[in-house]
Amino acid sequence: MSSIFESFLSTPEALEAFGDRAFVAAMLRFEVALAQAQAECGLIPREAADHVARCCADPDAFDAATIARESGRAGSVAIPLIKAIKQAVDKCDPAAVAFTHLGATSQDVIDTACALASRPVLDDVCTDLDICIGALLKLGDQYAAAPMLARTLGQPGSVTSFGWKCAQWAAPLVLARSRIRAAMDEALAIQLGGPVGTQVQMKGKGPDVVAAMARILGLAAPASPWHTRRESWVGLACELALLTGSLGKIAKDISLLGQWEVGEAAEPSEEGRGGSSAMPHKSNPVAAMIALAAAQAAPQHLATMLAAMPQEHERGLGGWQAELAAWPRLAQSAQGSVRAMAQALPGLRVNAARMRANLDRLRAELPPAAAAEWFDPALAGHAGDLARKQIESLRQQLKDHE
Amino acid sequence: MSSIFESFLSTPEALEAFGDRAFVAAMLRFEVALAQAQAECGLIPREAADHVARCCADPDAFDAATIARESGRAGSVAIPLIKAIKQAVDKCDPAAVAFTHLGATSQDVIDTACALASRPVLDDVCTDLDICIGALLKLGDQYAAAPMLARTLGQPGSVTSFGWKCAQWAAPLVLARSRIRAAMDEALAIQLGGPVGTQVQMKGKGPDVVAAMARILGLAAPASPWHTRRESWVGLACELALLTGSLGKIAKDISLLGQWEVGEAAEPSEEGRGGSSAMPHKSNPVAAMIALAAAQAAPQHLATMLAAMPQEHERGLGGWQAELAAWPRLAQSAQGSVRAMAQALPGLRVNAARMRANLDRLRAELPPAAAAEWFDPALAGHAGDLARKQIESLRQQLKDHE
Amino acid sequence: MSSIFESFLSTPEALEAFGDRAFVAAMLRFEVALAQAQAECGLIPREAADHVARCCADPDAFDAATIARESGRAGSVAIPLIKAIKQAVDKCDPAAVAFTHLGATSQDVIDTACALASRPVLDDVCTDLDICIGALLKLGDQYAAAPMLARTLGQPGSVTSFGWKCAQWAAPLVLARSRIRAAMDEALAIQLGGPVGTQVQMKGKGPDVVAAMARILGLAAPASPWHTRRESWVGLACELALLTGSLGKIAKDISLLGQWEVGEAAEPSEEGRGGSSAMPHKSNPVAAMIALAAAQAAPQHLATMLAAMPQEHERGLGGWQAELAAWPRLAQSAQGSVRAMAQALPGLRVNAARMRANLDRLRAELPPAAAAEWFDPALAGHAGDLARKQIESLRQQLKDHE
Amino acid sequence: MSSIFESFLSTPEALEAFGDRAFVAAMLRFEVALAQAQAECGLIPREAADHVARCCADPDAFDAATIARESGRAGSVAIPLIKAIKQAVDKCDPAAVAFTHLGATSQDVIDTACALASRPVLDDVCTDLDICIGALLKLGDQYAAAPMLARTLGQPGSVTSFGWKCAQWAAPLVLARSRIRAAMDEALAIQLGGPVGTQVQMKGKGPDVVAAMARILGLAAPASPWHTRRESWVGLACELALLTGSLGKIAKDISLLGQWEVGEAAEPSEEGRGGSSAMPHKSNPVAAMIALAAAQAAPQHLATMLAAMPQEHERGLGGWQAELAAWPRLAQSAQGSVRAMAQALPGLRVNAARMRANLDRLRAELPPAAAAEWFDPALAGHAGDLARKQIESLRQQLKDHE
Repeated sequence: MSSIFESFLSTPEALEAFGDRAFVAAMLRFEVALAQAQAECGLIPREAADHVARCCADPDAFDAATIARESGRAGSVAIPLIKAIKQAVDKCDPAAVAFTHLGATSQDVIDTACALASRPVLDDVCTDLDICIGALLKLGDQYAAAPMLARTLGQPGSVTSFGWKCAQWAAPLVLARSRIRAAMDEALAIQLGGPVGTQVQMKGKGPDVVAAMARILGLAAPASPWHTRRESWVGLACELALLTGSLGKIAKDISLLGQWEVGEAAEPSEEGRGGSSAMPHKSNPVAAMIALAAAQAAPQHLATMLAAMPQEHERGLGGWQAELAAWPRLAQSAQGSVRAMAQALPGLRVNAARMRANLDRLRAELPPAAAAEWFDPALAGHAGDLARKQIESLRQQLKDHE
Repeated sequence: MSSIFESFLSTPEALEAFGDRAFVAAMLRFEVALAQAQAECGLIPREAADHVARCCADPDAFDAATIARESGRAGSVAIPLIKAIKQAVDKCDPAAVAFTHLGATSQDVIDTACALASRPVLDDVCTDLDICIGALLKLGDQYAAAPMLARTLGQPGSVTSFGWKCAQWAAPLVLARSRIRAAMDEALAIQLGGPVGTQVQMKGKGPDVVAAMARILGLAAPASPWHTRRESWVGLACELALLTGSLGKIAKDISLLGQWEVGEAAEPSEEGRGGSSAMPHKSNPVAAMIALAAAQAAPQHLATMLAAMPQEHERGLGGWQAELAAWPRLAQSAQGSVRAMAQALPGLRVNAARMRANLDRLRAELPPAAAAEWFDPALAGHAGDLARKQIESLRQQLKDHE
Repeated sequence: MSSIFESFLSTPEALEAFGDRAFVAAMLRFEVALAQAQAECGLIPREAADHVARCCADPDAFDAATIARESGRAGSVAIPLIKAIKQAVDKCDPAAVAFTHLGATSQDVIDTACALASRPVLDDVCTDLDICIGALLKLGDQYAAAPMLARTLGQPGSVTSFGWKCAQWAAPLVLARSRIRAAMDEALAIQLGGPVGTQVQMKGKGPDVVAAMARILGLAAPASPWHTRRESWVGLACELALLTGSLGKIAKDISLLGQWEVGEAAEPSEEGRGGSSAMPHKSNPVAAMIALAAAQAAPQHLATMLAAMPQEHERGLGGWQAELAAWPRLAQSAQGSVRAMAQALPGLRVNAARMRANLDRLRAELPPAAAAEWFDPALAGHAGDLARKQIESLRQQLKDHE
Repeated sequence: MSSIFESFLSTPEALEAFGDRAFVAAMLRFEVALAQAQAECGLIPREAADHVARCCADPDAFDAATIARESGRAGSVAIPLIKAIKQAVDKCDPAAVAFTHLGATSQDVIDTACALASRPVLDDVCTDLDICIGALLKLGDQYAAAPMLARTLGQPGSVTSFGWKCAQWAAPLVLARSRIRAAMDEALAIQLGGPVGTQVQMKGKGPDVVAAMARILGLAAPASPWHTRRESWVGLACELALLTGSLGKIAKDISLLGQWEVGEAAEPSEEGRGGSSAMPHKSNPVAAMIALAAAQAAPQHLATMLAAMPQEHERGLGGWQAELAAWPRLAQSAQGSVRAMAQALPGLRVNAARMRANLDRLRAELPPAAAAEWFDPALAGHAGDLARKQIESLRQQLKDHE
């Protein structure tokens, strides 16, 4: 664990997905698929592929912690594993060693394993996103024209409706849902370039091997190796950063609405959630806290990945490695954020009476003309119309993307 | 100018596009289009719209420098301009003042003007991108199988071809071209929400007014106001950041190939370009310098925009303003980068003989077996095959997107 | 101007300081000081130095806009200026040309000019900082034990005093004041390394020339050239970024206290300040907005400078240039932020009655035991004691640093 | 582990220091010291303090993994631990429960534990820094006037010496050494503010308790609580970011010198270090890779911390948590970087003959006049003089700081 603080900013699954054991398992899946695909394409004997598959079948046969520790000297997490795999294959059938990891390089293993490790995390992101969207559309329906103060630059500006707020919170999530899926389809791809990205040892069958591996591993078959072309991969990261920004917006608003002085909405309260070590009466907006922390960290993780794009020649020195380390942090942040909101939004406690009371209290303070022009509760009707139309359109988009 | 250093990192046009005068002109275009659209929709009298149009016709009738200076106190660049417009309209026809800027807010003017100001800059980005792509595909054809050292982690790894390098440089640019266009179509959009994003003073005709303005100004008509939903706008920014990363990769490789000790490629040399104030014999890689500087700055500009996404309620305090200032810097960086490469790539001086000589020199240093296995010039054939196939595919993609 | 948005996020003086004209003037001061210092040290004839001084005396004799524009092709803002200076000297005395810019390189001119341009901006920062500190200490005295709700994670936690808040706002500014001064003394330094940082043409008198230039220009004489050693320079940038963070904290609290629902403090109101284009009743927290925008942008500007530190060999390609462009943005942000707060803090409208009323209102809502334990107004006494002691200590620190 | 990639970018000790078990142990040390200090100051009975000490003596009595996992719901890693401690104390002596964690809040525990966890990591940083400095000064002596090409913007500019390069690499490290120590003395401090930063339950003895805790834990006793005043803490982070930048500069140069085409320096070669999974003949610059990756990530980690400074009122929502998570990443990056260089620099393989040969080869290519003016090997004498003087001065500084 880079620190104990990761724990409350992400989910156990997302933290585990890129951990030593799971990543070693993902790298093993690469090696098995490579051998199987190469056997299919006639590049290596079927039995050699079977030997490799057998030797790599059990991740627990490899000491993930040692591999992680040795990666420092080696400069790559793949090198110590490949050494261990070859030793295992050698014990089983020395002739098969030469057909192990054939024509591949560390980056092939690592990039592909990274795609494999990322898929379930991103699937979880999408699932949690659906929960958030569902909750928001429901709230949007329910409070479509419920009047509340609209606030600009922190000051009451006029009247809006809580339903319109929900619809505007939901729209970027609906967009994110389809954009993340599209980016996954493109970026979660086989990496197979060999030592310098030319698939030199594939004897012209590189694309066939890639296609077979893609089928076996459930990843995309890219048009070419992407060793130092990271635009699709970093493009996927952009989508996650945008998502944390959109979730952060919701969290920011909820935290502001939840101030005691405002009191218009609050995260659901439950045993053991959001208490204070010193103040038993408090209920802290824990989900908003996590989403806001993610929204502050994600842009920087993405910046690291973007800044690493100018990688040198056929494999970057420092840049690729910085990118590798930044990606799990970004994915874990995004997952932590969407999970937190998926836990909070369905049970969001909306206080429509207080919304109305705050509005009325302001009206009472203002000159009647200003109150009538800008703070007539009936103005929420406009917002309600916009809300209903947008919710309908978002529901349609969700159907279209199913 | 925030500083003299902007000058050599961007283009005069991109710097001017967001400058005082041009931005005031763009804001005036918003006000004219708003009035025209509202007249079309029957919200204001036709004559009032004509008065507004006449008063806003000449940007030079407004003192852009004063407006910029007063924006500090006002907290918005739109407020002093709108005041000046209303004064001008008042002189012309006092009755038309009430129909000026009707139902709009500062953010409507500024966001829409920002879209207007951005379009020509992004069009230039696309034009320069086409030049880069054209040059790279030509080089890719020409040197498809020309053998050169492939280098990983800074060390010779095996053999590749210069054409394959060019094809791999080109591919992200072809992708960027279509992604930037798509993002422009979505993000360069009318902003019209009124004071709190509910289009309250449009009497239910908000979408019609938006549609008319979109037609008049050549921008998109978004499904709803996007005051504090910045995902499409920041999504466009992501594309530019990705582009600077991809251009930075090319620049990095060129600068490495251009080292005197390597000598395999160099930027075109011309009078007044890349000289040294102290060393007459030098020729500096000026284009690579600009592209690399952009690739280092762009991720941070984007990070500022992303971090600003959690904007408060119906208008952000600080976040929106930070985002506004970051966008021109990003667009100018991106444009500076692609222009620099568009000037350098078509005349790139490729030294295929030196590529071969470096390879041969390494072969002579290595044990014969290693030289034969990893550094046989014939290995460039594999890269050549990949290059030719990819270039063909990229040409097809370009045709498909025309 | 990189954009019109710079105007309201900085001060006219800070924007101008790094503009074309002012920067050309600063570069001219370098050339004059270099020649004078070299004459003093016997490296060039006294008359040659006088010629250079005469030719560089009037910045308006040089076309700053053209120099800025040509810098793009040259890859440096110094190269076109030096060319123009040499032409001017040539007209005056051809023999003096060889003694112009002798032994210096572009980076010497630019880094030194940057230090010269920065000094008045940073002096202004310090002056505005003093105003902020003075205002906060006065408020701290006045409201030392005035009870108010303390809020943690957005929720009322217990009781504090407004004076303690002010004292805690002030403390980082007092620290910043002395740290910025110390960093200026170190980082605003002569750069003079010559083409590759070895002072090769100074004939062993490099340190003497540097010392003389430092005296003439009022800058520090560093132990050695710092072409690619940027730790002191970026260290100064760190201080500014920390300052914007500390000011952002004050701004964040003021904006939260100023929410209509809270109503405990507000920025001073004046004609033309913080109005809304659509809503005449509004008064926006413009100073907080500027300080918050700066606090969001400054970390990224600093990140660009830090990321640029690994500059190649004796002059960076891309990194140095990215750093150059980021520094003015950071300095301008910091100056905009501290100026905004210096305008807002002395006239801050504090509503102690409302603070007390909010506290009493919460007490009424809580079970009596919790109200008594956590929200007794008398608890503000503890905060008051801390406030008084800290204010005294800060006043002493200010005296010690005078 | 946030990911397996952390392993090769940091050290096992630095990764462990902020891990679940070690951080729980550090939090336990806080609770013990708090109780002991409160007993000393007469705030709680001595026996209660002894009970707390006994119950917290063994970190393994607490289930760190569970505490970490539950922190998500609680919104803080301290809350589940404090609950567990109170249960343990309750079993031992129910009367002592009320004296456990008395007057403290989660942030007190966490911030103080973070300081405790950081100290050994930063001590290691300083130890490794001394190794780097020692190695560089020795190389600087040895090669003080050894001529080599100086390179600006990637092109040969003139002549320098390798010793001068080493002296310029060393100088920022010597500065970093004393600045980090000074920042540690200030920032590694007790946090003790209680629920809202007023030390309300310390009955006026807050400063005494802090002083006693500082003595017990070996941390600084700050002038006041620093819950939402993070300038010293983030200031320490700035020093680490500056250090990674300075180390990145050394790594960048070594990686460039180590290119096969240049061949002037290389990292030490040893079994299992820097090999390639595909290419047995390669020796990769692993240390430079790690240091460069750190130099790319550290600025972003710092940016997260800086951007989090505007924390709300008496405890930040999201900002503090983002800062907490960013700090270990920064400290681990910095430690990974300096450790890598401490392993590489003492055994750096310097090829002075190749330096001279490259210089001679360039001379042969140039017109004789240019060769004589700019590339005379004798020019290295100037660099040698600078090197010797600077090395002497750095040695003196090291002595002064002992």
